[in-house]
Amino acid sequence: MYYPSIKVLDCTIRDGGLVNKHDFSLEFVRRLYQLLTAAGVDYMEMGYKNSPDLFDPKDYGPWKFCDDDLLWKVRDGIESSVKFAVMADVGRVNLKAIKPASESPYQMFRVASYVKNIDKGIDLVNTFHDMGYETTLNIMAVSRDRGPELDEALDQVENECKADVLYLVDSFGHFYQEDIDQSVKRYREHVKTKKFGFHGHNNQQLAFGNTIQAIINHVDYLDCTVTGMGRGAGNCTTELLLSFLKNPKYDVRPVLDAITELFVPLRQKYEWGYIIPQMITGSLNLHPSSAIDFRKGPEKDMYRKFYEMMMNELNI
Amino acid sequence: MYYPSIKVLDCTIRDGGLVNKHDFSLEFVRRLYQLLTAAGVDYMEMGYKNSPDLFDPKDYGPWKFCDDDLLWKVRDGIESSVKFAVMADVGRVNLKAIKPASESPYQMFRVASYVKNIDKGIDLVNTFHDMGYETTLNIMAVSRDRGPELDEALDQVENECKADVLYLVDSFGHFYQEDIDQSVKRYREHVKTKKFGFHGHNNQQLAFGNTIQAIINHVDYLDCTVTGMGRGAGNCTTELLLSFLKNPKYDVRPVLDAITELFVPLRQKYEWGYIIPQMITGSLNLHPSSAIDFRKGPEKDMYRKFYEMMMNELNI
Repeated sequence: MYYPSIKVLDCTIRDGGLVNKHDFSLEFVRRLYQLLTAAGVDYMEMGYKNSPDLFDPKDYGPWKFCDDDLLWKVRDGIESSVKFAVMADVGRVNLKAIKPASESPYQMFRVASYVKNIDKGIDLVNTFHDMGYETTLNIMAVSRDRGPELDEALDQVENECKADVLYLVDSFGHFYQEDIDQSVKRYREHVKTKKFGFHGHNNQQLAFGNTIQAIINHVDYLDCTVTGMGRGAGNCTTELLLSFLKNPKYDVRPVLDAITELFVPLRQKYEWGYIIPQMITGSLNLHPSSAIDFRKGPEKDMYRKFYEMMMNELNI
Repeated sequence: MYYPSIKVLDCTIRDGGLVNKHDFSLEFVRRLYQLLTAAGVDYMEMGYKNSPDLFDPKDYGPWKFCDDDLLWKVRDGIESSVKFAVMADVGRVNLKAIKPASESPYQMFRVASYVKNIDKGIDLVNTFHDMGYETTLNIMAVSRDRGPELDEALDQVENECKADVLYLVDSFGHFYQEDIDQSVKRYREHVKTKKFGFHGHNNQQLAFGNTIQAIINHVDYLDCTVTGMGRGAGNCTTELLLSFLKNPKYDVRPVLDAITELFVPLRQKYEWGYIIPQMITGSLNLHPSSAIDFRKGPEKDMYRKFYEMMMNELNI
């Protein structure tokens, strides 16, 4: 599968940071940056631009805050055409700490917003756009919020939002390929002037298949993480996506190096991927947090019990 | 997703038996039989009907041979509507040991054949059919053998073969959803009088997505294994498939029990699922055996090295 407008955005450090409280060493991130550069990836998402007033830096690694100094240190001495992205959640970013893009070590801001916060999300995107950043708007949890409020939000995006890219996000890992096809078509009915992106989760082992469906629908921006490292069940894996794409600029071999060097050891310490409680929340269209909590408890392999708890939560 | 003609065939003991040399205890298989009965599964595939003249019974567990006595012991005292299937490979079955279906503990014979052996495969199917068995013909490795020889084989199946079901088999885990759609349509062009089945492998995390595609294409017989246990990267998981299907006769909860009781402990001893060398063979359309061997060696996590070996094998 090949078309030239595809952009691969590796968000391992950002979404994977939700697994280890953003506790990657600078050395780890720099090595990954080198290898993803060799792999031909287009963007690397480094973490969140969260305000240290809202989260105590003692409780998290530095990629939850992504100070400019830190990102300059990542870049230091490495020749690369990979652009850096950071994520901003509505209400969690300290705008006073953001410099114009021309003075910044990163090029893209990605704004994550629920449908109900879409006004604030658009406002944030427009602020970053006006500071010179490439911007994306990632509307989360649309497997839940797919009523008429989504159509209204999409119309607002078309009419008011300066984002370069609008992302379809399968936050709960609930979608399968027909949902992706229908969602992209629905987004395109409302939004005519933007590029599109897709960010999947792997609760039902469908993140890669859904990303292929997005490619079939000519979605340009494709998110992935090395070994799928990301919250809960994780994401479409970078190695699968680069193996599938025929664009000659991509090379899966440096990603294989990254897995051997960096992620095999990390896997000994942290859990992500296809895990039964995550499968259950994905299948039931629920947020992954209950499954993450359950896996930390003494009954982590009591799958029927977790299923019954979730069914009670749904009141079915 | 629901239609009434769907049949779920759990082949954990057969395909999973390729992981542990068919070394399941009778107690394990009986417990799984009870739980899959409660889950509403339609068929359970118990192993191979291999001739003990070809494989030494000392080297393998009993499910590689599936003696009638053994299968009667599985059935003993358990009330169930689940039918038993066994698999026969062309050239490996001792026909003299096969009783007529009316005297047998299993109801279905599945014959696995390559395109090049299709005459022998058809002959074997017809023999079993005439003995009163339900039969399927599973044409393997069609991601490799998709030239005009496949069309000829399909015409032969239509004209000469008494199988009830023709299976599309993605032996190498190479297909994605468009391949499934195109293959099913191609099979249907040639074969008008049979039901269809799909058996996937999960090398690229696409076994479930491909099974969904098969459902979209109204394929009736769907293979799966609990936790995906099967050779190499394994299969579409039974828990995902039953969670997805809306047919009220299926209940995922006993499958969750099976995972907790039987498969969490088994996972400590054996490896299956999404493993990088398996991903590489799937992506390159190669047989999984090289990856299985590589994972047993001292360089099992040297993924780039394995990739280069496979590329050399392909002479690219």
